[in-house]
Amino acid sequence: MMGFLLIFNGSFMLISAIVSFFYKDGATEGIFFAGFVTILVGFLLQFSTKGFKKEVKKREGYIVVTLGWILMSLSGTLPYIFTEEIISFTDAFFETISGYTTTGASILNDIESLPKGLLFWRSTTHWIGGMGIIVLTIAVLPLLGIGGMQLFAAEAPGPSADKLHPRITDTAKRLWYIYFGLTVTEALLLKLAGMGMFDAANHAMSTLSTGGFSTKNASIAHWNGQPLIQYIIVFFMFLAGVNFVLSYFAFKGKFKKIFKDEEFLTYFFNLIAITIIVAFIVYFNADVSKIPTETQLIAHPMVNGEIESAFRHGLFQVVAIITTTGFVTADFTTWTPFLTILFFILMFFGASAGSTAGGVKFVRHIIMIKNGYLEFKKSLHPNAIIPVRFNKKTISENIVFNIMAFIVLYLIVFAIGSLGFGILGLDYMTAVGGSASSLGNVGPAFGLIGPVHNYDILPNAGKWWSAFLMLLGRLELFTVLILFTPYFWKNN
Amino acid sequence: MMGFLLIFNGSFMLISAIVSFFYKDGATEGIFFAGFVTILVGFLLQFSTKGFKKEVKKREGYIVVTLGWILMSLSGTLPYIFTEEIISFTDAFFETISGYTTTGASILNDIESLPKGLLFWRSTTHWIGGMGIIVLTIAVLPLLGIGGMQLFAAEAPGPSADKLHPRITDTAKRLWYIYFGLTVTEALLLKLAGMGMFDAANHAMSTLSTGGFSTKNASIAHWNGQPLIQYIIVFFMFLAGVNFVLSYFAFKGKFKKIFKDEEFLTYFFNLIAITIIVAFIVYFNADVSKIPTETQLIAHPMVNGEIESAFRHGLFQVVAIITTTGFVTADFTTWTPFLTILFFILMFFGASAGSTAGGVKFVRHIIMIKNGYLEFKKSLHPNAIIPVRFNKKTISENIVFNIMAFIVLYLIVFAIGSLGFGILGLDYMTAVGGSASSLGNVGPAFGLIGPVHNYDILPNAGKWWSAFLMLLGRLELFTVLILFTPYFWKNN
Repeated sequence: MMGFLLIFNGSFMLISAIVSFFYKDGATEGIFFAGFVTILVGFLLQFSTKGFKKEVKKREGYIVVTLGWILMSLSGTLPYIFTEEIISFTDAFFETISGYTTTGASILNDIESLPKGLLFWRSTTHWIGGMGIIVLTIAVLPLLGIGGMQLFAAEAPGPSADKLHPRITDTAKRLWYIYFGLTVTEALLLKLAGMGMFDAANHAMSTLSTGGFSTKNASIAHWNGQPLIQYIIVFFMFLAGVNFVLSYFAFKGKFKKIFKDEEFLTYFFNLIAITIIVAFIVYFNADVSKIPTETQLIAHPMVNGEIESAFRHGLFQVVAIITTTGFVTADFTTWTPFLTILFFILMFFGASAGSTAGGVKFVRHIIMIKNGYLEFKKSLHPNAIIPVRFNKKTISENIVFNIMAFIVLYLIVFAIGSLGFGILGLDYMTAVGGSASSLGNVGPAFGLIGPVHNYDILPNAGKWWSAFLMLLGRLELFTVLILFTPYFWKNN
Repeated sequence: MMGFLLIFNGSFMLISAIVSFFYKDGATEGIFFAGFVTILVGFLLQFSTKGFKKEVKKREGYIVVTLGWILMSLSGTLPYIFTEEIISFTDAFFETISGYTTTGASILNDIESLPKGLLFWRSTTHWIGGMGIIVLTIAVLPLLGIGGMQLFAAEAPGPSADKLHPRITDTAKRLWYIYFGLTVTEALLLKLAGMGMFDAANHAMSTLSTGGFSTKNASIAHWNGQPLIQYIIVFFMFLAGVNFVLSYFAFKGKFKKIFKDEEFLTYFFNLIAITIIVAFIVYFNADVSKIPTETQLIAHPMVNGEIESAFRHGLFQVVAIITTTGFVTADFTTWTPFLTILFFILMFFGASAGSTAGGVKFVRHIIMIKNGYLEFKKSLHPNAIIPVRFNKKTISENIVFNIMAFIVLYLIVFAIGSLGFGILGLDYMTAVGGSASSLGNVGPAFGLIGPVHNYDILPNAGKWWSAFLMLLGRLELFTVLILFTPYFWKNN
């Protein structure tokens, strides 16, 4: 299993090496060597474990998922290290796990100086991470009984697996086609809209995985003069935040399913409502003097009074944060105090379950709010049995419990995450922002690691802490944390 | 019922008038007149509603509690207004509701210039609020089925009421004796330790109610030169944060009950552990230059290297925030970034259920964490039925649900509270701090309304918003919020 992952990962490195060779960026040798080593180790692992039973049990599932993600991140550092473009192992590991967890936080101070092959590898880590998440949510997490993911399993098309196969289920394969198709479509549209082919491909991979790595230092603010490009990215960020099962239905022409889906509708209307609020405030409050002109971020600063610009920047940032992509066209932390608080809260939204987005996700919020609302009814009628309903189906108490526990656990981990950064001497905004952003796999945060900065400013311990939070968030907390409970290791 | 509350309130005003007369502070007439008017209106209400049924139904219970608290706060403004010491109605209402909700946030810039009779009235509002909370938790909230308070009802001594009587139950009366006894004891001890009689009485009332109003501008920092006084206050803040039922058992000599109580033990050991951490950090990081010498707050600034001082200030602030009292001996917001984050988190602790403290409270945290932990076990054994246990008793799923919903609702209200302050243009720290502090009935917050500042800096709308959050927090959210649900008004 682990061997297979390494071979898979190494093959993608070889593709990056080809890209590197094509652009003659001088990094070909290093990337190729990284791919070669990874594949070699993969084969060795494959052979050494041959003969072991192939059926993975539930308990082992947790280990496989967590170790798998870590193994990918470890091997994924090789292209950076062999090309000597990132020398510190901490930095290389941070950049890689930020890729695989589709966070998009970077320690690179000058992204554009990186060889193209490595830039491509960087985006590839996002894209592989996104593929991983799709398998995880479809085939693995529901069986592990994590955070209400059982809900989602029932909705998925295709034969529902009742045993944990190491092979990818048919369902996941279908969704991968959608994922792949959307990535190619976005790349083509971006190319048509005027973006270079290389940038288009990289950004398409970063978008569909809700990652956030850009090939430009200024992120998407680089194209502040080309609104069409930004709208295309907004549209695909939105799609990346939709349950891929729904996209599959859309592809099959079953639009009714989509417009009856509570999570989709909540996601969609929340985006619209919040965008209107933000655009309105930005329009009336945007102060050019507040925009950091000394950074490259705002190539074309928004001017007070430009309705389209206020709408676009509001929309872009709202979608980028809610979908946990983390692309940037303007520094939302410099807008108004109200918007700082609002964007902070948005970090806890997350998009839809079954998408590549991180964070809490709408389905959990919906069930939590419905349940909270029912508590009022229960106070008045203590003996009535009133189940929570979602998409016209009754949700079992077990799943509601599971979801409430997830949300509470998420907030506890967020608090501990903040304290962790605090111990390192980081200021309040950086600490709480870094914790929320890492855990939610967003990318940009607040304070010293805001949208115009990067995570290189963190001390090494802070980078490891952030990486740990990313992994926790990406694997829906339980998968990783359960390994730390005594239950897990009893009667093994 | 409402008439009775007003007569009760008015009588206390007359006591303040007597205090005022005794000190010849010139405010006697105004306070007496306020008391007279309040009692008169109370009698009129009493007579006009005579003949109405006396049995209050559950549904009406919510209205009575919420309206009762508001009515008390409205009538409680009269002494301030009639003496013209607080002219703005907004300010007077804020100060009064901050009193009754035992928050202790103040809009007064010069507390010491207030006539003694009014200072006494100010502390009295805390003390009455504390009494109100005891009735509420013992006799009212459990019957309304709010946030796991049913748990608590079962533990209380005396005949358990199964109908909502407008009369105070026997249990509440017993606890009031404890409350009264502890207040007198603290006042005497403070007097013995060197505090003036007037200050001693006022601070005793503020302490037992976990209020936080002081008669000094510098709060308890006024006595930074007299550690004994501060330790006495710490001890009684601690007791005020203990379930009064346990104090009753202690009074009856049943100490075993106390040392078997999970909530008490968790509360106690958390205080100790957190104090050690804080004292340790303060000891090694306290920088005299960080202490705002320009304010009166730190009469005797803590010097780096004084172990006792670091321990005392650490202990004092930790106990003051966890018990939601909000007395201050040092400005914890200027310590280290880590401590800022830690104290922010402490605002969400709250002390024990059945105490006068606000906030979430330990029993809820305990059950939430136990349940979260069990979720891991459930993931591994999905078919096992594993109930949450508290004090060796199985907690029904309904109550666990109730508590989880309470905590999630608390955090949602906190987020909305922050946004509310944000809309008014307040900065991030002030907004989130103000929301957490108001909702938790703490008092001091962060930013512009930190320990060395007061709430007068808030715009009027901010004062009303804060007052609303105080009321929500004090009445355990559901009591107030249920009035805004359609369920409540259906089939009435």
